[in-house]
Amino acid sequence: MRVQDERNLTMLCDFYELTMGNGYFQAGMRDRITYFDVFFRNVPDKGGFAICAGLDQIIDYIQDLHFDEEDLAYLRGRGIFSEAFLAFLRDFRFTGDIWAIPEGTPIFPREPVLTVRAPAIEAQLIETFLLLAINHQSLIATKANRIVRAAQGRTVLEFGSRRAQGIDGAISGARAAFIGGCKGTACTISDQLYGVPAGGTMAHAWVQMFDSEYEAFKAYCEIYPTNATLLVDTYNTLKSGVPNAIRAFDEVLKPRGITKCGIRLDSGDMAYLTREARKMLDAAGWTECQISASNSLDEYLIQGLLRQGAAIDLFGVGERMITASSEPVFGGVYKLAAVEEPDGTIVPKIKVSENVTKITTPHFKKTYRVFDKATGKAEADYITVWDETVDPTQPLELFDPMAVWKRKTFTDFQLVPLQVPVFQAGRLVYRRPSLQEIQTYCKEQVDTLWDEVKRFENPHTYYVDLSQRLWEIKQSLLMQEH
Amino acid sequence: MRVQDERNLTMLCDFYELTMGNGYFQAGMRDRITYFDVFFRNVPDKGGFAICAGLDQIIDYIQDLHFDEEDLAYLRGRGIFSEAFLAFLRDFRFTGDIWAIPEGTPIFPREPVLTVRAPAIEAQLIETFLLLAINHQSLIATKANRIVRAAQGRTVLEFGSRRAQGIDGAISGARAAFIGGCKGTACTISDQLYGVPAGGTMAHAWVQMFDSEYEAFKAYCEIYPTNATLLVDTYNTLKSGVPNAIRAFDEVLKPRGITKCGIRLDSGDMAYLTREARKMLDAAGWTECQISASNSLDEYLIQGLLRQGAAIDLFGVGERMITASSEPVFGGVYKLAAVEEPDGTIVPKIKVSENVTKITTPHFKKTYRVFDKATGKAEADYITVWDETVDPTQPLELFDPMAVWKRKTFTDFQLVPLQVPVFQAGRLVYRRPSLQEIQTYCKEQVDTLWDEVKRFENPHTYYVDLSQRLWEIKQSLLMQEH
Repeated sequence: MRVQDERNLTMLCDFYELTMGNGYFQAGMRDRITYFDVFFRNVPDKGGFAICAGLDQIIDYIQDLHFDEEDLAYLRGRGIFSEAFLAFLRDFRFTGDIWAIPEGTPIFPREPVLTVRAPAIEAQLIETFLLLAINHQSLIATKANRIVRAAQGRTVLEFGSRRAQGIDGAISGARAAFIGGCKGTACTISDQLYGVPAGGTMAHAWVQMFDSEYEAFKAYCEIYPTNATLLVDTYNTLKSGVPNAIRAFDEVLKPRGITKCGIRLDSGDMAYLTREARKMLDAAGWTECQISASNSLDEYLIQGLLRQGAAIDLFGVGERMITASSEPVFGGVYKLAAVEEPDGTIVPKIKVSENVTKITTPHFKKTYRVFDKATGKAEADYITVWDETVDPTQPLELFDPMAVWKRKTFTDFQLVPLQVPVFQAGRLVYRRPSLQEIQTYCKEQVDTLWDEVKRFENPHTYYVDLSQRLWEIKQSLLMQEH
Repeated sequence: MRVQDERNLTMLCDFYELTMGNGYFQAGMRDRITYFDVFFRNVPDKGGFAICAGLDQIIDYIQDLHFDEEDLAYLRGRGIFSEAFLAFLRDFRFTGDIWAIPEGTPIFPREPVLTVRAPAIEAQLIETFLLLAINHQSLIATKANRIVRAAQGRTVLEFGSRRAQGIDGAISGARAAFIGGCKGTACTISDQLYGVPAGGTMAHAWVQMFDSEYEAFKAYCEIYPTNATLLVDTYNTLKSGVPNAIRAFDEVLKPRGITKCGIRLDSGDMAYLTREARKMLDAAGWTECQISASNSLDEYLIQGLLRQGAAIDLFGVGERMITASSEPVFGGVYKLAAVEEPDGTIVPKIKVSENVTKITTPHFKKTYRVFDKATGKAEADYITVWDETVDPTQPLELFDPMAVWKRKTFTDFQLVPLQVPVFQAGRLVYRRPSLQEIQTYCKEQVDTLWDEVKRFENPHTYYVDLSQRLWEIKQSLLMQEH
């Protein structure tokens, strides 16, 4: 079961996609083939890279793209769409091509994450949903990856459903957090739908429902002897919570030979309290008891706690991950890159702007990641015109498109195309990896980045360069526009 | 059609709701009646009040609450739930009571927004969804209301779908923005589902698809003569965009006697460009042409633009509203307030904390808004024990529960209960107002607040006070816990 299978999200589009669609239809442009790129301009949190996500949701959406009779009735009721256009929408399906960078891949500003080649009406209609899916899930995957890296190998779980921005914010947010490296979630339905392992034990209410904290803990251990993580901060963590937990472990778990258990802290000075709790647990022989912490955490607080020697095995991260609260917008955009003449000629298009970083890179393109063969590290991304060939036996000279005198030559390199075909002529041609595969792939790919690109403070800017030919086309279009 | 009617969201719960549910079941507490309050602690953006929203979605959720066979199969597969509990879940329905503050009401920290009275398992299970719905929609309604107030009567439209945090972030986000005062949305499906008026005309791609900006504008005016809002910043706003728009209006609209039209700017120095565009339009006789602006706006930028004399009639607000990006979390919590003994005695419960502002207000409560009869203004909210009566003919003395020497007496006042019954014994007893009614009610209620509470900088703190009896109960419970 997939949540969105049950809903037709075709109408989840900005209304102007429909007015433009009707307009293209009336203006005789319905068969005009267009090329659009999804790309983003800035990495959230001033990071060195983002993690791409959202493609799986897009595949569901594209496959289900159609207008129901009630959709057509709504549109007719608006009184501005021609009957011919509405008839066209009745049989509407996506017939174009989509290439995309697989989920879990590190991505960089200004490179095409996803490219659409389709008749103008189709390409335009899908804009809103494509951006929504990529922007939301890449945002959360990127934030989760930062938090997981800050935890330095300790387990990070996603705990944020109650503070998520809506139903899907919780459900597919948990999925994106898993891609970024979280080991699981508190969100039950995300396990059921996507296989994100869900877990959880008790809230403060459980403790308050019993006559004493000790009775609450003991009852819990008796019901869940192999999964007893006790929340120890309802009254006083060190004076009552930890001692009562130890007593319950001693009385219920020890006689059964169970050594695995846990405590969770949700408030207070985590660095101090967890160190003290660790000493108390160890002194009582509960050395395998895991300590979880879960109080408004993010990558910076986790780094700080670890610097202070906090004894935390597992971080439960809520609102700051599920909303990426420090920068809650991933600014992916969807821009026309080219149109195709009836004879098949691809005519590059550019969008100029007063702000030079907002000028688009024109044309139907192909992007490669340049790996150094000796180190296996990713050195740069290289964007070419779609039909260019690169001779991998010759040295490859890259230059910064914003500062062309900055040049770097690679000799012993491997080029890996970043985008893969997803739809061809409307047909899915992509094998959808499992969520676990995506998480594993993400970790492998992040490992190919230099530490300088991965650090949180002033990361090194990774090169995303244009081929000489693409750069020249861009310059000549800029000259024409001015 | 309502999106969530088609989905069973019962499993959208934190996993610990289920482990606790099974635990209450096993511990013989399944019939224990509990009282939980939803409340929040801080107004986002340091504002003086929030706008309550999310109840409509909660009603759908509660009415549809049930476990499908596939849900039970998933839970059984987890291997930790008893068969008796799973059998209990098969017939599970919500049988309790819910009281809530209606959507669109201004709300304040630490007062019960929604109260649940239900058997422990039921009350616990619904925690996650209740918080998710209220937190998300109140967040967006509150932000939208700030932005709408900043626009000082000018139209504000919600344009953020592509940057929303997921599908529901876009769809019900647009609904919440409408409650806060937006006049419409770009999100088509929110119109279809909820009646949020959707509109939109063209993106830059439309302009780029034609051989010239002028041809693009002319074609658009011909197709949509009565709805021609032209995007004038694709090339150069003042040198080409506005002149081409005027030419298209002159050639296509003028001969038909149409005087209503619009231009939209999405980039550049909005204050300068809109003033100049206004002069050009007026000089050409297009005095009714509306100017829209839509570039990463929020309440502060809108205030700044208006201070600078920008000539803007309509603001399209995107990412900063649909994600409430300046503070993207509404921190509503769900806390146990009381349990009911088998004889019907209500036993108040408190959750203590080192942080005094995090201490809960115990008991089953009733909250009133105190209106001054002479001015019609809201003066304070007053929280009592559920069975207290207030004599409206006697002076009412309120005191600050955190500083009891601060006292204020009201004489000519009216008390209005804030919460209304929504479910009684599992049955919906609430007439769901239309979305338009909610928007109108919201505006009326915000108008009852003093300007000092509404300002953005250092707003006056609105009083939320406890009755003497409730305050005494809280004090005595605090003493017991320590």
